[in-house]
This record gives sequence, C-alpha cells and structure tokens, in this order.
Amino acid sequence: MAAQYRNFRNSVPWLILLLETLLIVLFYFLFSDYSRSPLKDFYTDFKNVNHVMIFGFGFFLMFLRRYGFSSSGFNLLTIALGVQCSVLVEDFINFLLQSPKVDVLPRLTKAAVSMTAVVISTGAVLGKTNPVQLILMTVVEIIFFSVSRWMNIIFLEVLHNASLVHVHLFGAYFGLAVSSRFSEPWPRSEKNASTPKLDLMSMLGTLFLWVFWPSFNSVLVTDNKSTAIYNTYFALAASAVTAFVLSALTTKDGRFRMTHIHSAVLAGGVAVGYAAESITYPWIAMILGLLASVIAILGSYCLQRCLHPVLKIHDTSGVHFTFGLPAVLGALAQVVLLVITCWPTSQSLGYSVLTHIGAFCLTISVALITGLITGLILNLKPFKIVPVSKYFEDQFYWEVSVNV
Amino acid sequence: MAAQYRNFRNSVPWLILLLETLLIVLFYFLFSDYSRSPLKDFYTDFKNVNHVMIFGFGFFLMFLRRYGFSSSGFNLLTIALGVQCSVLVEDFINFLLQSPKVDVLPRLTKAAVSMTAVVISTGAVLGKTNPVQLILMTVVEIIFFSVSRWMNIIFLEVLHNASLVHVHLFGAYFGLAVSSRFSEPWPRSEKNASTPKLDLMSMLGTLFLWVFWPSFNSVLVTDNKSTAIYNTYFALAASAVTAFVLSALTTKDGRFRMTHIHSAVLAGGVAVGYAAESITYPWIAMILGLLASVIAILGSYCLQRCLHPVLKIHDTSGVHFTFGLPAVLGALAQVVLLVITCWPTSQSLGYSVLTHIGAFCLTISVALITGLITGLILNLKPFKIVPVSKYFEDQFYWEVSVNV
Amino acid sequence: MAAQYRNFRNSVPWLILLLETLLIVLFYFLFSDYSRSPLKDFYTDFKNVNHVMIFGFGFFLMFLRRYGFSSSGFNLLTIALGVQCSVLVEDFINFLLQSPKVDVLPRLTKAAVSMTAVVISTGAVLGKTNPVQLILMTVVEIIFFSVSRWMNIIFLEVLHNASLVHVHLFGAYFGLAVSSRFSEPWPRSEKNASTPKLDLMSMLGTLFLWVFWPSFNSVLVTDNKSTAIYNTYFALAASAVTAFVLSALTTKDGRFRMTHIHSAVLAGGVAVGYAAESITYPWIAMILGLLASVIAILGSYCLQRCLHPVLKIHDTSGVHFTFGLPAVLGALAQVVLLVITCWPTSQSLGYSVLTHIGAFCLTISVALITGLITGLILNLKPFKIVPVSKYFEDQFYWEVSVNV
Repeated sequence: MAAQYRNFRNSVPWLILLLETLLIVLFYFLFSDYSRSPLKDFYTDFKNVNHVMIFGFGFFLMFLRRYGFSSSGFNLLTIALGVQCSVLVEDFINFLLQSPKVDVLPRLTKAAVSMTAVVISTGAVLGKTNPVQLILMTVVEIIFFSVSRWMNIIFLEVLHNASLVHVHLFGAYFGLAVSSRFSEPWPRSEKNASTPKLDLMSMLGTLFLWVFWPSFNSVLVTDNKSTAIYNTYFALAASAVTAFVLSALTTKDGRFRMTHIHSAVLAGGVAVGYAAESITYPWIAMILGLLASVIAILGSYCLQRCLHPVLKIHDTSGVHFTFGLPAVLGALAQVVLLVITCWPTSQSLGYSVLTHIGAFCLTISVALITGLITGLILNLKPFKIVPVSKYFEDQFYWEVSVNV
Repeated sequence: MAAQYRNFRNSVPWLILLLETLLIVLFYFLFSDYSRSPLKDFYTDFKNVNHVMIFGFGFFLMFLRRYGFSSSGFNLLTIALGVQCSVLVEDFINFLLQSPKVDVLPRLTKAAVSMTAVVISTGAVLGKTNPVQLILMTVVEIIFFSVSRWMNIIFLEVLHNASLVHVHLFGAYFGLAVSSRFSEPWPRSEKNASTPKLDLMSMLGTLFLWVFWPSFNSVLVTDNKSTAIYNTYFALAASAVTAFVLSALTTKDGRFRMTHIHSAVLAGGVAVGYAAESITYPWIAMILGLLASVIAILGSYCLQRCLHPVLKIHDTSGVHFTFGLPAVLGALAQVVLLVITCWPTSQSLGYSVLTHIGAFCLTISVALITGLITGLILNLKPFKIVPVSKYFEDQFYWEVSVNV
Repeated sequence: MAAQYRNFRNSVPWLILLLETLLIVLFYFLFSDYSRSPLKDFYTDFKNVNHVMIFGFGFFLMFLRRYGFSSSGFNLLTIALGVQCSVLVEDFINFLLQSPKVDVLPRLTKAAVSMTAVVISTGAVLGKTNPVQLILMTVVEIIFFSVSRWMNIIFLEVLHNASLVHVHLFGAYFGLAVSSRFSEPWPRSEKNASTPKLDLMSMLGTLFLWVFWPSFNSVLVTDNKSTAIYNTYFALAASAVTAFVLSALTTKDGRFRMTHIHSAVLAGGVAVGYAAESITYPWIAMILGLLASVIAILGSYCLQRCLHPVLKIHDTSGVHFTFGLPAVLGALAQVVLLVITCWPTSQSLGYSVLTHIGAFCLTISVALITGLITGLILNLKPFKIVPVSKYFEDQFYWEVSVNV
C-alpha cells in the first residue's frame, strides 16, 4: 500500500506539469490574438470575481480541522489551472458560435465566472478527493459546463451572458453527483468537523462572499448594473437576518449554529442572481432572500436526515443547501416574476417561459448526468488512491509540522 | 432561571422575524420608486463603506477570548437589519425635508454611513448585550441619529451631507451612555480579555479600517474627494507612528501594547474626518493625526483610571478613546481651522463658527440623552436576561463545540 | 544588560517622535503646493498598492511562531513612516530633475511603490532587527533607492516610471546585504519556525499578494494597463501551478511544502513585472511564470544548502527566492524579448539592450553596496541591542499575555 502511495505521489507533479505544458501549447496556437480593452470597468469586474473565488471560497471552505492547507492550497491550484482551461474552452465555444471577437479582459472575466461552478463542486467533495481527481474534475467540469451552455445557446436561444447565470445550479448538482460516487466518510470521524477558530476563518470567507456577491451578480449584467447591485444587497440582507431566525428555530435550546449562518447568509444572493436586474422593487428581492434562507436551512435540516442518507450522498460543505436549492428557487422565481410582469401584454410569454424552464431542466440534467459519469471515472483504479481513513487529512498531501 | 432563559431564547427568532417582515412591508409601501444611477462611482463608495463595516469592525471587535462568534455574527446581523431600517428612515427624513429624489445607490450609501454609528456603539456594549437588546438598540439609535441630523439640518442649516460627519461622535457617546446603564463585568474576569491570536484577528480588522478610512472620509465629500483622501492618509500615517511612540511611553518597560496600537492608529482618521476636504496642506492633517493619537492613548490612560470608575462606565472596546475623543478633537480643529482661514475676510465668520459649535453640542447632547434613555429601556425586565456571569460568553447564544 | 535594555527601550519612542516631527517640519517647508487630481484612477492605483503592502506583506510575513505582533505591527509602523519619507524624497528628486509638478495622489502612489522595496528588505531581516534598526533601515533604503533611480534616469536615460520597475530587485538584494551583517540565529531554534495556523495567516497574505499583483504591475504602466494586467494574471496562474509541481518534486515523499507555495506562487508576478505591458501573447507570460516558479523553488533548494551557509546569509522569509531571483529572471527576459521583437528592424537595438543591462547592473550594485554599508551601520554599538537569543521574540518589544 505504501509503495502504491509513493508511486501515486511521484506521478502527481508530472501530471500537473503535463497539463500546464499542454495549456501553454494550446494558448500558443489558439489564443494569439490580443486586443486592448477600454479596461477599467472590465478589470473591476474581473477583480471582483477573483475576490469571490480566491478569498471568498478559499476561506469559506477552510473549516475542516485538519484540512486547512489543502482547502486553501488546492483551491488556488484548481483556480489557477481552471481559469486557463476555461479561457481556452470559452474561446473554442465562441469560435463554434462564430461570435465576434471580444477583448481579453472580458473573456477572462467570463472564464472566471465559469470557474465558480468548479469551486462550488469542490465544496461537495472537499476532503475526499486527491489532487489528481480534483484537477481532472476541474477540467472535465469546465468542458461539460461549456457544453451545457452551448446547448442552451443553440437550442433554446438563450443569450450568451444569460447562459452563465446557471453557474451555481450546475456547480452544486455536478458536485453532488460526483460526491455520490465517493465512499462516505466514517460517521463519527472527528476530522470531519470544525473548530471554533476555523469557524472564524470560514466566517472571513463568508463575509468576503457576502460583500462581493452584489458585484458578482452585476458582472453578467450589461444594462442595469445598479439595479442588480441593490437588489442583490437587499436580498442578502434579508437572507442574513432570516438565517439567524431559522438557525435559532431549528436547533435545540434556540442557540445559533455557525454553519447555518455560513450557508444561509449567502442563499439570498444565489437566488436573486437569476433575476437581479429585472426585479423592479427591493421588497421583492427581500422576500426572495428570505425564502432562499428558509429553503437553505430547512433543506439542511430535512435533507441531511432524510434524503442524503438514502441516496448515500455526503456533501462536505453543504453546497446543496447553500447553492443548489437557492438556485432552484431563483430559477423558479424568475419564471414567476416573468409571468406576473408580462401577463396580459406579451405575445411571446408562453415561449419565453418555456425557454426558461427548458434551460433550467437542460442544465440540471446535464449537471447530474455528467457529474455521475465524472464521479464514476474518478473512482476508477488509477485515480482512487485515498482510503476513507485518510479523508480530511492534510498530512497525506502536505508536510505538516507535528509538534504544535 | 433556566426556564426563563429558554423562554427568552425561544422568543428571539420570532422577534427578529417580526421586525424583518415589518421592514419588508414598509419597503413595499415606502420604497417603491426606483431609479437608475450612473452607478460606478456610487457603487465604489458603497462598497468602501461596506468594507469598513463588515471587515473592519467585524474583525476589529473580535478580540474577546470567548466571544468571537457573537462579535462577527451579531455584527453581520445588526448591519443587515440596520441598513434596511436606515434606508427607510433616511427616506422618511428626505420626505420631511422635501429633498429631491436621488438614486438608490447613493441613498444606500448614506444609510450605510449612518449605520457606522451603531457599529461603534456596539463596541462599547460588546459582550454585555443579548441579541434582542442589540437589535432594539440598532433600531432606536438609527432613529435618534436621524432625529439629531434632522435637527441639525432644520435649526442650524447644516448641509445634508455635512450632518453625517458627526457619525463617530454620536456613535461613541450614545454607546457610552447606553453602556453606563449596564452592570459592570466582574473585574478580574478572564473572559473579558484577549489572546495573542485574537489580537492578530483584531489587527486584521484594524488594518482594514486603516486602509479603507480614506475612502470612508471621502464618501461624503462631493468636490474635493482627492484632497479628503490624501489628508486622511497623512493623518492616519502620523497617527500610526504616534501610536507606537505613546504606547511605549505609557507602558512599563517601554513595551508596546497591542490595544493601544489598535485604537490610536485610527484616531487620526476620525479626527480629520470633520475637515478632510478643507485642509489645504498635508502637514496640518499630520499634526491633527498626531494630536488625535496622543489624545486617544492619554485618554485611555487617564480615563480608565479616573473617570470611568467614578461614572461606572465600562467600555469594552474603548470606543471612547478610539472614536469619541478624536471626534471631539476633530470638531474643535474644524472650528479653529475655519477661524484661521477666514479671519479677516469673511463677514459671516461668527455665524458659521456658532453653527459648527451648535451642531457639535446638539449632537453630543442628543447622543448622551437618548443613549441614557435607551440604556434604561434595555435594562427593563423583559430585555435584561444576561446575568453578569454570562457576559462575554459565546456559549450563551451559540452552539460551540467544546472538545477543542 | 537589563539596564542597557531599559535605556534602549526608553529612547525608542523619543527617536520615533523626533523623526515624525522632522517629517512634519519638512512637509511644512517642502510640500506646500497642493493640486487636485482627476482622482478616480489614481486613487484606485494607490489603494491597490496599499492593499499589497498592508494586507499582502503584513500577513505574508506573519509566519513566525512568536513574532506575529511584531510582524504586523512593525510592518504598519515602517509603512506609515516610510511613505511619508518617500513622498518627500520623491519630491526632492523631482525638484533635482526639474520634472513638471504632478498631483498629490500620483506622487503618493509612486512613494508607496518605492516603499515596497523596504517591505521586501524587511522580510530578509525579519525577527532580527529592533524597531530603531528597522526605522533607520527604512529611511536609509528609501534614500538609496531614490539615488539608484536618479542615477538610472540621469546616466542611462531610463524613463521616470520605468526606473521604479527595479523595486523588487533592489529590495531583495539590499535586504540580503543588510542581513549578511547580522549574526545568524541559532540553527535549531524553535522560534524560527511556523505553525500550521500561522501558515494559514501567511496564506491569507499570499492570496492578497496574488490577487493584487496584476493591479500592482499595472500601476506604473500608462498605456497598456489592460495588457499588463492579463499578462501578469497568466504568469501568476502558471506560476501557481508550477509551484505545486516543483514543491512535490523537491520534497521527500512527494508532499507539498507550504513555504514553497507561498514563495513560488508570486515569483511569476515579479518576473513578468519588467515586461508586463510589452509581452504580446499570454503564452510568453505563462512560460515566464513557469520559469520564475522553477527558479524560486530550485533556488530555495540549492541556495539554502550551498550558497547561503558559505556567505553566512540568513534570509528569514526567503526574499531571495521569492523576489530576488525572479526579478533577475524578469530583467533578463525583458532583454531577450526586446532582442527577439526588434532584431532586424531597430537601429538602436544595441543601445537599448545596453541601457537595460546597465540599469540592471547599476541597480543591483547600488543595492548590494549600500545594503552592506547599512548592515554595518545597523550593527554599530548604539543600535545593536538584540542578542541572538532574543531573535524572533515578540515579548522583547510587546506586552504579551502569557497565560494562553
């Protein structure tokens, strides 16, 4: 067994190097046009997305007792690799769709937004994957998410930017499907838990996500950025308040639970993402935020007891409640709002409702199916090397000084 | 007693939910116009204020040994609730004053600036209030601060934006007055102390405040943003240097004390806030920063020994030295600078000096009186539920894993 | 000995106060023009540089077990003092060069960029200097760096902005030269080590540097900011991936080492800094990032075993690998790229190649020579007060609560 480990460890760097070299070669052949953008705006957008991914998720996921190095380190690794892949895949799709050439920074921004799907999926399998599985999942997920978007654009005539709005939905359900193929960790494992100090680090990540979510939701919007920003802010505010309410209601003794706060605080931002620019009054966004928070905490309450044990899904950082369910709610709310707004006036209402529902179903199906396939592949012999006893363990991958 | 706790805990979520529902209803009736802003600038301003509140104060206040969850969690809760209240109150004042309608984002930014008063007050009662007291204080303080601003605008013809400049003054003295009505914690309580690791977390908050303070001071300025920014920066720099000087001079052995650094480093930014856009030379800002830092540390040295024990005020995070005294200095400096600049030329000098002094006295009086009243109300039977022995204790409100 | 300590400690605050007073007086006489800038852009630049210095380096250097207070506190102190010095020195140089007057914010931004050299040097002597040595080093280094830039501008006709590009090179080699004059810490000292939790704090700093490096590299660029940004981003991405590859290859068992990641992740950004705006294709930036990362990790592998023990250099936070070697690579790459791009067409190719090489040699020589001199001065009797046994020890300078 020890020899197998060593072989595996020795092959990891070469695989990563190979991939990076391949990327450089592909960049050489495919990404040779360069054009200058009027910059400022695009860079702010890109920086905001980067903040969400690097600081937000990097620290949001840093709650496992012995997995801090891997959470933050592998998050950086997947993002650094993934964005490079994503830029190429994005370009390839643009080539297929024969879209007009755009500047580098907006392309980079879109690539980064796509990467969010991967970072969310990572949350579901956190601590159970080795770096090779993680990297493979990154590459495969980016390709499948692009395929899903391409299908949306081609078959359902969804706009290019709007196709990115499903990023949380895809990320959450892809991650869950992959996770369902991994063995469950031992139930009473101490390692699969947090400490108060790490909860505070995770709070730092949550706060980063909370503060930058309005920026994130406004990235894909071209016209009404301002509306998207304040709607998201109000939804997040209502969501945060409701998180405290429901956390106290669902725990024994009416105490607050930190993991509830972490997940439900963001639910509003995810849910409002679908319709952020078209919601006309803040109170609608606030109700949506409230409902998203309710769904996130009740979901975590029910699903962890009923559905997940049956389906044998283990979802390390609760992406199903934090991103999956609120995204479903958001997609639904978008349709409802569309119907309410355009009811008697619009001729094509039925068609656009069908398009929205179609895009939702298509995305979630692609996510689940490709996620399952990816999960199966990742658990083939050559990749599956981490025994369940080594889940959530930094020392398996990192030099950790013990005498502390 | 245990039953009383439980009843209380069970009622907390319903109270919060009621408030949130009320807010949504009020938003429905009152906040139904929406207009689009040219965005970019306003959003940057709003984001900066948000950074100051969420990251800055969120971590600045996270220094109590067993109160990290509450510090960061309740900070988020009060801000999320408070900003919603504050937007409505701000709108109501605008309606009373018959100001022209402005866009949503600038209104949101002003509402967030008002919230800073609450966050500062929270620092004075940190660890001694339960969530219901905290939320009540938030709502009440926002209303009273708006009343104080409204009186300034109506009676003293202070400009709308300029009335917000007293935010630190109001926050600090309101907080102190509230705090004076709470029982003092046990003197040798270990819980009312920090640990080196939490001091570093608090340092993170301080650095956030230090870096974003120039942005914060420039938010309310319309013309000379650039001047406000560099004056604040130079004041903060001088303040930081002086903090080290005085910390070494006032401690035994000439060692530095971390809490001195935390509070004095910011004093310059607070003091310069009053006149940030009208100071013509950086050296004036630097002298002001130096004096503010001196006042902050000497104040903490003298007041904690003399005044506070007599008045029985317990000021958990030293908001009196960090925000109160420097704000007094800043208000004074504004008048002195006004006199020096306009001495022989201006006809109306006497009048505008009186206005400034009047606004200062009015604000501080309203803060102290309403703070005392609020403190008394918060200590009525139905709200006062935390015994002194449970001060500074996360476990009273949060599920904390013990075996760590 | 104890008396000597006490005398020393008592003199520290007066020295700092004297310096701050001197600065204010100098500001009074020298910095009395004020002009308003069109702001927004310049302020964003300044804020980005500030983020890099305060958050990035502040936490990047916070990895020593018992030196957290000093790392973050003294970092703030040197930056606050240093930027004030730097503004004055910058102004003096502009006066010598008879450059046209510019606005305050751009001057402040350049002053902050110069300070980066000092912050990097600080990393090499971290834990071995007392505050007086640190402040003296700050002032002296800023002056010498300006002298070096002035020589570049006068003798080699380097452009004003371009002269700042050597900031990492100068900082790293100045710091190494200073460090070589300090006694080495005891080899098996436990204090000269990190803990997993502090490694995560240091990771926070690294992530700040990683995210803000594209902004930092674009500050000095006027035309092609967008190109500089995406080239830096791609270089950083390739660098991060390669860091993992080489970390696994150079450690026993193929485990990753956190310090490798911390340093190599940034190497790409440093290396690409020289030519960020003129690299035409991302793949070139990616190769440069890959090479920088290789050099950083192989350098740390070889130098720590061979060169440093011979030269008796102790480099606390590995600035030689993180900033020194990648900067050398970047300077070299700039020349190579220049030759490749302009080979047959340009008449003045030889001249401009010579200029670049000259500027590089001049800067590194000035850094090494003045660094050695500074190191010698800092180790004169009146300044050298920290015994080797007190290296890396917060308690020597700070009140630290022990019972934790």
